[in-house]
Amino acid sequence: MLKATIDAETFREMIDAVSALVTECRLHVDGNGLKARAVDTANVAMVSLELNKDAFETYEATPEELGIDIAKMKNIIGMMGRGDMLSLVLPEGSQKLEVSFGSYRYSVTLLDVNTIRKDPSPPNIELPGRIEIAGSALSSAIKAADVVSDKIALGIDPAADLFYMVAEGDTDHIRLELGSDQLISLTSADARSLFSLDYLKDMGKVMGRAEKVVIALGIDHPVKFIFALSEGKGSVEYLLAPRIEAD
Amino acid sequence: MLKATIDAETFREMIDAVSALVTECRLHVDGNGLKARAVDTANVAMVSLELNKDAFETYEATPEELGIDIAKMKNIIGMMGRGDMLSLVLPEGSQKLEVSFGSYRYSVTLLDVNTIRKDPSPPNIELPGRIEIAGSALSSAIKAADVVSDKIALGIDPAADLFYMVAEGDTDHIRLELGSDQLISLTSADARSLFSLDYLKDMGKVMGRAEKVVIALGIDHPVKFIFALSEGKGSVEYLLAPRIEAD
Amino acid sequence: MLKATIDAETFREMIDAVSALVTECRLHVDGNGLKARAVDTANVAMVSLELNKDAFETYEATPEELGIDIAKMKNIIGMMGRGDMLSLVLPEGSQKLEVSFGSYRYSVTLLDVNTIRKDPSPPNIELPGRIEIAGSALSSAIKAADVVSDKIALGIDPAADLFYMVAEGDTDHIRLELGSDQLISLTSADARSLFSLDYLKDMGKVMGRAEKVVIALGIDHPVKFIFALSEGKGSVEYLLAPRIEAD
Repeated sequence: MLKATIDAETFREMIDAVSALVTECRLHVDGNGLKARAVDTANVAMVSLELNKDAFETYEATPEELGIDIAKMKNIIGMMGRGDMLSLVLPEGSQKLEVSFGSYRYSVTLLDVNTIRKDPSPPNIELPGRIEIAGSALSSAIKAADVVSDKIALGIDPAADLFYMVAEGDTDHIRLELGSDQLISLTSADARSLFSLDYLKDMGKVMGRAEKVVIALGIDHPVKFIFALSEGKGSVEYLLAPRIEAD
Repeated sequence: MLKATIDAETFREMIDAVSALVTECRLHVDGNGLKARAVDTANVAMVSLELNKDAFETYEATPEELGIDIAKMKNIIGMMGRGDMLSLVLPEGSQKLEVSFGSYRYSVTLLDVNTIRKDPSPPNIELPGRIEIAGSALSSAIKAADVVSDKIALGIDPAADLFYMVAEGDTDHIRLELGSDQLISLTSADARSLFSLDYLKDMGKVMGRAEKVVIALGIDHPVKFIFALSEGKGSVEYLLAPRIEAD
Repeated sequence: MLKATIDAETFREMIDAVSALVTECRLHVDGNGLKARAVDTANVAMVSLELNKDAFETYEATPEELGIDIAKMKNIIGMMGRGDMLSLVLPEGSQKLEVSFGSYRYSVTLLDVNTIRKDPSPPNIELPGRIEIAGSALSSAIKAADVVSDKIALGIDPAADLFYMVAEGDTDHIRLELGSDQLISLTSADARSLFSLDYLKDMGKVMGRAEKVVIALGIDHPVKFIFALSEGKGSVEYLLAPRIEAD
């Protein structure tokens, strides 16, 4: 059972964050709020999302697993205005989620959760380097790299105390260096890993709207991007596997 | 003969209203103003339009029938600025309409009216239900229905004194209910008919700009949408045939 | 060797002006500034461009010929913000141009100049008619003509002391007449030539941003469009060959 109302904008951010990687997911609801974790079809990127019940105007739920068609949900959300309040109602035992806003009432048949991939387990990894950066700056850097290449190296230079990003094309390359004065904060550590821009571009569009994104980096390790939803009452974490550097 | 000047915006609204259904039409001019009536190629929707001579800055005309290429006219109008004044001149006996604005002077060869379908006769129907609604609200409702289905039912619930709209998809549906406090006015009557969203979407874009749209509804009958042009100095009426409801 | 910084907007205008006609060009630098001259693949249009060293914030150069990939440069420039300052550095003997702005540093491999068409020689022609017009007015006129035709005649009527533009379609035509009060200035002379709108449309987008464009016209002769870059510290000249008028 779920009976909740939430600001349209917060719900939109949540759906957008998931839709960067997958078209459907299992949404876990219980008395504390919502959770989802999904991995893309190629097993390269994972999204983990939490939305605390405090992020909702009203919230009441018993443990339940909802099969969400993300693409369909995006279409419905596209109809909502900025200030709209969204109501979500799933009666006990029902497979029809009622989504209402203004005078509109959608009845959306949920997906059978058994047809959706099981939630992945998050890997246990140590990522010593930590960068806090404005979402807009991170998003710009991803776009800039895309001009010359299809992959990007993210790293920290502990000696110079700076975060860098390098993209190498066949004939051109780009380098971006940001010192601690251009970042929100920097925890130095030896770190450098290479990533596919394909994934980063989709994530970058979502992260560009975040005030602050935390980047956790290691050496030839996955990268984690963590940012808040709804003023800290929720959070999104992207995990992206590294590519092997060909020299 | 026609010799008239008109505000660019009013003329643009007039052409847009017709172009939602047809690509060419017969425009009747006489001393009182302009009139056009056209039906789409599938005979499902009709547009009737009137523009009183008071809607013009200057107006002088003798009875005449002009074959208008709507698509071409839209391209020309696309060049006009918001505040522009448009001049239309058709000399006696000529088939070349002179369309001028600013320093531009277009000479547009009219279509031979004999190659354009004859004006349809408006059917004589009684539509007891009557809803007055903001154009933007009607347009939003049409867009919301389009997310789940390709057809929409419009109806009045006389018991609850409300106007409703229902769209049923394969797995989802949407319902919108508007009471008299959310409408400009409502004349209750038993009414419910099903319509194709294909047509309504094109009409909806035009009606979305109208301050007020009058909807006239019956049971399994056509629907009429009526709205004003140029602060009441003209009017547009759309008539849309119902679809058969498959149960 | 080149070592220069320039306002991002000025550099963008320069690249846009060239990209209307060609995808690569030879850029000549020396102690006085930059120069480029290129002709399109069909030999119909030529662009000549000069940017004085005064247009730069800082400027230092020894004579050099740079092979510029215009399309790639446009992509890089697309990343720059409005107020950004751009730095261009080409070390002595190097073929890698370093393009930097903000914290970004691109390294762009130059094209081998021997693979780029040699600079064309400007033809020696007399064009007695001269019109000075706002760039936006010229750009609008080109768009208006495009609605009815794929070619446009530009001319001067010395008797009426006006500049005109005529485009003839199969059934329609458009005429625009601008007297000296609607122009910045007009030097009357018998002049009328026909041009392809294909080329003019691309040029028009660039010229639309210029405060003033000088048009030099003759009878069945090429047309010249001249406009300033960076408040007169640079200039662009387009030369477009006439089409033969079929009567």
